Amino acid sequence: MTTPTPDTAGGDEHAGHAGHGYITAKDDYLKRLRRIEGQSRGLQRMVEEEKYCIDILTQVSAMTKALQAVAMGLLEDHISHCVVDAAIAGGPEAEAKIKEATDAIARLVRS
Amino acid sequence: MTTPTPDTAGGDEHAGHAGHGYITAKDDYLKRLRRIEGQSRGLQRMVEEEKYCIDILTQVSAMTKALQAVAMGLLEDHISHCVVDAAIAGGPEAEAKIKEATDAIARLVRS
Amino acid sequence: MTTPTPDTAGGDEHAGHAGHGYITAKDDYLKRLRRIEGQSRGLQRMVEEEKYCIDILTQVSAMTKALQAVAMGLLEDHISHCVVDAAIAGGPEAEAKIKEATDAIARLVRS
Amino acid sequence: MTTPTPDTAGGDEHAGHAGHGYITAKDDYLKRLRRIEGQSRGLQRMVEEEKYCIDILTQVSAMTKALQAVAMGLLEDHISHCVVDAAIAGGPEAEAKIKEATDAIARLVRS
Repeated sequence: MTTPTPDTAGGDEHAGHAGHGYITAKDDYLKRLRRIEGQSRGLQRMVEEEKYCIDILTQVSAMTKALQAVAMGLLEDHISHCVVDAAIAGGPEAEAKIKEATDAIARLVRS
Repeated sequence: MTTPTPDTAGGDEHAGHAGHGYITAKDDYLKRLRRIEGQSRGLQRMVEEEKYCIDILTQVSAMTKALQAVAMGLLEDHISHCVVDAAIAGGPEAEAKIKEATDAIARLVRS
Repeated sequence: MTTPTPDTAGGDEHAGHAGHGYITAKDDYLKRLRRIEGQSRGLQRMVEEEKYCIDILTQVSAMTKALQAVAMGLLEDHISHCVVDAAIAGGPEAEAKIKEATDAIARLVRS
Repeated sequence: MTTPTPDTAGGDEHAGHAGHGYITAKDDYLKRLRRIEGQSRGLQRMVEEEKYCIDILTQVSAMTKALQAVAMGLLEDHISHCVVDAAIAGGPEAEAKIKEATDAIARLVRS
């Protein structure tokens, strides 16, 4: 359903000197996001074909769960790298990073 | 970003005798789902370009909210049509429809 | 932990002529809400005794789940009674009831 | 509605050498949790008096939001202290702490 793009291979080359931590699992994230893109197309097809509403809602729940799982992975990577690095460096930047992360978590909890 | 497909026009033709209620707003749902598909591609691009993790999480929250809004619309349509029709017809089918709808809501609340 | 109050017995007497549907399971709701009250006191004790943060968060999740389960029950009762009755009566009131219910659901999904 | 207990004063005395970080705001957390306890009693009263279902659901949403806000505060404290301390100490313990925190977040997102 989703066509793998060649860019992922190119993206891997500079994975070693990436700035934003989550990059170790970049290919994995891209694979999961392409699957989510596939789910969003599946939903369009279901609406197009006027499938039973409850079945569409079940798919929406599955897609939301998949999205949240990606978010949790990114968050873990972010805390492991950016937040911890800032904490080790110390100072007001450390506190700001933690505040920023918990604000992002609060948005996820509420969304 | 998302290419409108000609099928939507065709879908409109038989909107009058659709079986599953949500169809009055079919084009609107398809438009919103295509935008969500666009968001999922935007997320892939952000990961590809190694954007800042918190910005990606903000996009995930926005996309989740958009998905939930679609779900809420479908749910309202479903209750207005299927559930209410079953309720008017009465019998065990009515109760089953309500149970099915609240189970779907519970999945949405938890996802 | 939670003291059963004698009012529940009294509440049962007029369960037959209640206006708001959920009343068939009134005692069950009260029991669950008292348990939730107990959980909120348990949380205070955990903070008081400076328990491990993650264990407190686990309790918060359990309490939130218990609350959402009560909400789902109330919602199912509400749809079965108020919404369906309004739907059978028909007119603008029916539509308003459905809109009101889905707005409440949207608040639950987001909370 | 909620009676302030004298224990909070006692709890403050040893706030300085507390082990679990969130303690700086202990009184604030206790105050918020007592308010949440009050909300749970308010819900019982609403069910007891057979209030309108949607109004009860609105209260459930408000209470859930209040609970989630407490959780967010505890989480921020936890990351600022336990997680960051473990990260500075380094080793497998650091990784375990981050995994434990993101698991707790995932439970909050899903609850």
